[in-house]
Amino acid sequence: MAVGDVTFPKMWTVSGVKIGTSEAYVRYANRRDLVVFEFAEGSNVAGVFTQSAFAAAPVLLSKKHLAENTPRYLIINTGNANAATGEIGLQNAEKTCKRLADLGYVQTNQVLPFSTGVIGEQLPIERLLNGIQPALENLTEEGWEAAAYGIMTTDTTPKGASEQFELDGVTYHMTGISKGAGMIRPNMATMLSFVATDAPIAQELVDQLLQTTVTQSFNRITIDGDTSTNDSCIFIATGLAGGKGIDSIDDPRYQVILDVLSRVMLRLAQLIVRDGEGATKFITVTVEGGANTQECCDVAYSIAESPLIKTALFASDPNWGRIVMAIGKAGVDNLDSSKVQVWLGEVQICLDGGANPNYTEAAGAAVMSEKEILIRVDLGRGDAKDTVYTCDFSYDYVKINADYRS
Amino acid sequence: MAVGDVTFPKMWTVSGVKIGTSEAYVRYANRRDLVVFEFAEGSNVAGVFTQSAFAAAPVLLSKKHLAENTPRYLIINTGNANAATGEIGLQNAEKTCKRLADLGYVQTNQVLPFSTGVIGEQLPIERLLNGIQPALENLTEEGWEAAAYGIMTTDTTPKGASEQFELDGVTYHMTGISKGAGMIRPNMATMLSFVATDAPIAQELVDQLLQTTVTQSFNRITIDGDTSTNDSCIFIATGLAGGKGIDSIDDPRYQVILDVLSRVMLRLAQLIVRDGEGATKFITVTVEGGANTQECCDVAYSIAESPLIKTALFASDPNWGRIVMAIGKAGVDNLDSSKVQVWLGEVQICLDGGANPNYTEAAGAAVMSEKEILIRVDLGRGDAKDTVYTCDFSYDYVKINADYRS
Repeated sequence: MAVGDVTFPKMWTVSGVKIGTSEAYVRYANRRDLVVFEFAEGSNVAGVFTQSAFAAAPVLLSKKHLAENTPRYLIINTGNANAATGEIGLQNAEKTCKRLADLGYVQTNQVLPFSTGVIGEQLPIERLLNGIQPALENLTEEGWEAAAYGIMTTDTTPKGASEQFELDGVTYHMTGISKGAGMIRPNMATMLSFVATDAPIAQELVDQLLQTTVTQSFNRITIDGDTSTNDSCIFIATGLAGGKGIDSIDDPRYQVILDVLSRVMLRLAQLIVRDGEGATKFITVTVEGGANTQECCDVAYSIAESPLIKTALFASDPNWGRIVMAIGKAGVDNLDSSKVQVWLGEVQICLDGGANPNYTEAAGAAVMSEKEILIRVDLGRGDAKDTVYTCDFSYDYVKINADYRS
Repeated sequence: MAVGDVTFPKMWTVSGVKIGTSEAYVRYANRRDLVVFEFAEGSNVAGVFTQSAFAAAPVLLSKKHLAENTPRYLIINTGNANAATGEIGLQNAEKTCKRLADLGYVQTNQVLPFSTGVIGEQLPIERLLNGIQPALENLTEEGWEAAAYGIMTTDTTPKGASEQFELDGVTYHMTGISKGAGMIRPNMATMLSFVATDAPIAQELVDQLLQTTVTQSFNRITIDGDTSTNDSCIFIATGLAGGKGIDSIDDPRYQVILDVLSRVMLRLAQLIVRDGEGATKFITVTVEGGANTQECCDVAYSIAESPLIKTALFASDPNWGRIVMAIGKAGVDNLDSSKVQVWLGEVQICLDGGANPNYTEAAGAAVMSEKEILIRVDLGRGDAKDTVYTCDFSYDYVKINADYRS
């Protein structure tokens, strides 16, 4: 069960974005495991992808196509990641793009392919190809929710975020979906996320908006410290809602769009954590007082990925010694432990590197019994600050990953 | 339950090393939780310690004393790590050393203190001090097994290794103990390990032997990727068995001692993994064909610490896609995935970066059903090679760490 409020929101449609789904039987029967996005001509598209050296065939091809041409279609399958599949895997991804391109009257390199699921098996390519026409037949601007369901694997809930906003009297929309739920420590992007707006944004700003917002959202979450071979995040601006084009960061409307996109991306990223495999708690780890952002992140990830801390969180045990351990092992140069402060929620547990004499186990236990917990660390070295989001480590994490073939 | 043969061996006594234990009631009643080692005058002693920025008070004091004087005593308590305890913690460690020094007629800085257990609580110093005299009263060369039991925390078995060897007609002994069993990815040493020989080895060679053998033993194991605040490993050479002193690495006897110590240290390190918290399997991860040792270790640790791989090992699921994922995220510069080979035992699962066409699930499952599993990776980039030892990730790991206050 996902943690906290994960209600699927009203999804505003985005002019110029249509979505179709079909049952291709990639791995399981009777589920809509194939999703196609179609963008209006003139849309600007940006993507960020996994940094894994074993990047999947669709990731390699999406990067290539994105560099060569302007995308008009995305095609996404679940059930099979088409990763570690060699030359055949690349050919299958290419065949998928070609079939969709032929049916949509565009170039093959105007299609970006995405896959998620089991690594190391070849795609059932004929079934996949046969699913494309049916998906095209139900293309609709109302397809966001069906797509959110379509891209799920071990996710227990569909993940969506959507906002309507106004700029100079024109109404725009920002709508996106994402999926998790394991093998999550994205390094450039999450497993899969697709966000679109009908605002008119220049290509270079679309790229910049995606890079900026990914850093503070998908690149700040971790379920298990594992990085997928297929992580991809795509941002599309169709411009079809009209208004004057936004082509400079000095345009005051740029800041508004940055704020909206930041919220949508952070929500989509946090939804992945809230639905992390076996998660029973949602944890925010904030590290401040660092000499630079990197060391804040190093400490935050060291805490967020420690199996000992994650099991203590599951057990609601205010075992703060383990937090100190994780700070100690994070590799911060010349850290003076006597300047370190640690809080659980509002309760200071560690004062100047030692036990806070005013701390009581009851106060710590009260915080740990919550479903949403803030761990805050002050390194006492400077002004840098950063935040990472994670979940706890439960019996169910082991159960899900001992059973599921991901 | 520990994995494989963890039989406690015949422990050869080491001339010049006596060990006493007592019940100090540090945390639990009715257990011998205090251990004292006494070395004959003239013994040479070397130590390596945790690199944690939150190194415990006893670690800080041991390093200081070791730099100032020649140790004659070690004192070890379990149940409380005396870590993150600030100035009071340091004073308590110092009081402990002073009491033992007074009773043993040596200088305070000839005593090295060690603690293991809960982090962030002050030692019950009076009980600890009162336990010293009783421990001294039962000092005996036969005390190794009692000490191995005395230093256990979540360990399920005592850990010992011992060899008798001959050099130029003189019989020597090398005997040691260690403890785990969680918060284990030592970075310089394990939680606690103490090894002694009665061979006559010069101080600088004692230091060098410890550094060399720790690298390939305690610094190559991981249970959960967490690094303790208290890791310490001590090597003592009393010289009391006689024979000509060994004071050069060109002395052919040096190589013999290096070999013996390497075996004893590797055994003690592997015993910690075999008794890892919740472990049901013992995993050897060997990475070869690397451009250098560092990248071999990076890939080996990435595999050995991936929760997804560890849960698959627990489930005996030959889910090799997860191994490929872990190689991909290890951060090896410009890794050409098409040159990567992966074996499970003797079964090649990944050929040139893709699925081996001759691989069968049945063959992979047969290897995974074993209690001892070798994962071997060839990066296809060079001649470097390294090996890391780990265990799987089971329901019991979660259970132990959700219950135990470590």
